[in-house]
Amino acid sequence: MRPAPESAALVRDVLADYGMATRNALARYVAAGEPRRHLYDLAADYPLRGGRSLRASLCIAMARLFGATLDNAINSAVSLELLHNAFLVHDDIEDESDERRGRPTLHQLHGVPLAINAGDALAVMSLRPLMENRRTLGPALALRILEEAERMARESVEGQAIELGWRRDNVVDLTDRHYLHMILKKTCWYTTIYPCRVGALIGSLDRADLDCYLRFAFFLGAAFQIEDDLLNLTGDSVRYGKEINGDILEGKRTLMMIQLFQRARPPETRKLKELLARHRSTRTPQDVAWVRGRMEAYGCIQHATRVAHGLAGAAQHEFEQCLGARPESRDLAFVRALPTWVIARA
Amino acid sequence: MRPAPESAALVRDVLADYGMATRNALARYVAAGEPRRHLYDLAADYPLRGGRSLRASLCIAMARLFGATLDNAINSAVSLELLHNAFLVHDDIEDESDERRGRPTLHQLHGVPLAINAGDALAVMSLRPLMENRRTLGPALALRILEEAERMARESVEGQAIELGWRRDNVVDLTDRHYLHMILKKTCWYTTIYPCRVGALIGSLDRADLDCYLRFAFFLGAAFQIEDDLLNLTGDSVRYGKEINGDILEGKRTLMMIQLFQRARPPETRKLKELLARHRSTRTPQDVAWVRGRMEAYGCIQHATRVAHGLAGAAQHEFEQCLGARPESRDLAFVRALPTWVIARA
Repeated sequence: MRPAPESAALVRDVLADYGMATRNALARYVAAGEPRRHLYDLAADYPLRGGRSLRASLCIAMARLFGATLDNAINSAVSLELLHNAFLVHDDIEDESDERRGRPTLHQLHGVPLAINAGDALAVMSLRPLMENRRTLGPALALRILEEAERMARESVEGQAIELGWRRDNVVDLTDRHYLHMILKKTCWYTTIYPCRVGALIGSLDRADLDCYLRFAFFLGAAFQIEDDLLNLTGDSVRYGKEINGDILEGKRTLMMIQLFQRARPPETRKLKELLARHRSTRTPQDVAWVRGRMEAYGCIQHATRVAHGLAGAAQHEFEQCLGARPESRDLAFVRALPTWVIARA
Repeated sequence: MRPAPESAALVRDVLADYGMATRNALARYVAAGEPRRHLYDLAADYPLRGGRSLRASLCIAMARLFGATLDNAINSAVSLELLHNAFLVHDDIEDESDERRGRPTLHQLHGVPLAINAGDALAVMSLRPLMENRRTLGPALALRILEEAERMARESVEGQAIELGWRRDNVVDLTDRHYLHMILKKTCWYTTIYPCRVGALIGSLDRADLDCYLRFAFFLGAAFQIEDDLLNLTGDSVRYGKEINGDILEGKRTLMMIQLFQRARPPETRKLKELLARHRSTRTPQDVAWVRGRMEAYGCIQHATRVAHGLAGAAQHEFEQCLGARPESRDLAFVRALPTWVIARA
């Protein structure tokens, strides 16, 4: 499922436009505070490293295709980017990751204590633009968006707990269903479901049925996460910005890892389980290469690619159901093109 | 400044009453969720270990003495307790503390990744009761309280950053002013200023001048924090619930530590600075005993005690200015008795 070149270019353009608008508005929140050296410089670091602004752009596009202006949606988009970066800072500590967007992670640069606190600060900072919605959208809608944000953040920490729990307890009897349930909570809620719901909320002035975007957004977000995990194995480290095969080093339960446990012969699954029981610092490049090789030998990467493509197709189908009848616009074309874009990013 | 026995008993009784009401209401938020084993059990742990519920009780008492009911204030009190526990979980990781309320810290029990995430979950959970204020207090007041919460959380992470920065960079040229500025942000905003402001907000239906409680609450909160630091040196470990002298082990910049740097002879300050530059795991009980002995020899503990008493006296004075004219009630007597209670807790 290759995207038509013109829709890939459209996605790039819209991400660039709405990403820049979001970053410009965001700069106001991270620029001014004190203490600079031990807090605001740290909090500004990840957001200023760039990123695709997928979440912010989806939120803005949904709001606009329901009739809102960019200004109506920008606070919510900024809030989402700040919260996304808060998650990244804590995720990197929890995963003991070394790189983020091509540079050392925040805790590598400043130590764990200041990095935990900078993550907390980003989460707090994500609330401010939602408060400011009161002036632009009125108190009732501002509170509705805050309610959606609370739900979304709750789903995210629950999903994160599931994944961290699997790793800490070295759980290996998992299926694709477990994985999809976990990423529904960990990834989809904040990456696609919340942006769709809040965009529709803002654009429709709370008159849209938000639940009808759940399926579209789940399929889209799940395809996005699986593709992200695939890029960790097959991507270009410069463009990807993280260590290639870092997920294997971290023992992350990706679809490929779950399939490997289902498909490999018992001596291999025993070896794999032992390998994952050890601390990541004791896993050698040879260990990682072996796991990677087994994933390929057993068709795990192929399987995950197929699942991602299936989900992207399902998202396209759902798009037509819930948004296909809306008037044609650049924003509508952008949202329509996202399912193919997420699986063809590399 | 010994409190009259009857006002000490009153403070105990009110803390017990409002603390129980808050814990009962809080149980609903931490009880129901999934995943239990890797998230909700962890999130419920610290709140269920007990604690004095000073913050929640102050918020409820202020609301009531302005004419509200306990029901009007309980959501905000629950939210505050949840956020307080979120801070404790992350503080314990940042400080590498071993004990909290007489038991191992959360990260000692479950590892750093799950503990960071449980702290994040508690912070997210603290938002829910504030959303529910919409039903009991209406959207405008609910949003005002959320704005106060955002400000308070921001002050707290800024204060935390200042303190963590001092330790990471081994800063030693500090004065009492630096310390008071830091605890204004780190401790007072969420312990006393926010509870006073939000209580007055709820009770007066947003008609009170909140800024007039700033000074009372700052003096009260500062006396509380200094006394807390003193208890870390001189308290009973069973009642205090943390390692005695743990602050010295952690290299915490308490008023006593700051004074020691100002008062000790150069060879001693050099030795002290070297000692604090090392990782806490390399500091021996002999090192800690030496620091503790020097603090006593140079009158640092006496100095901090005097400052705490001075602040408590100033809080009493401010109480009369901003609250003394209100009609007599159990809640008013409780708030009046707090300044002497905080410095005589042991």
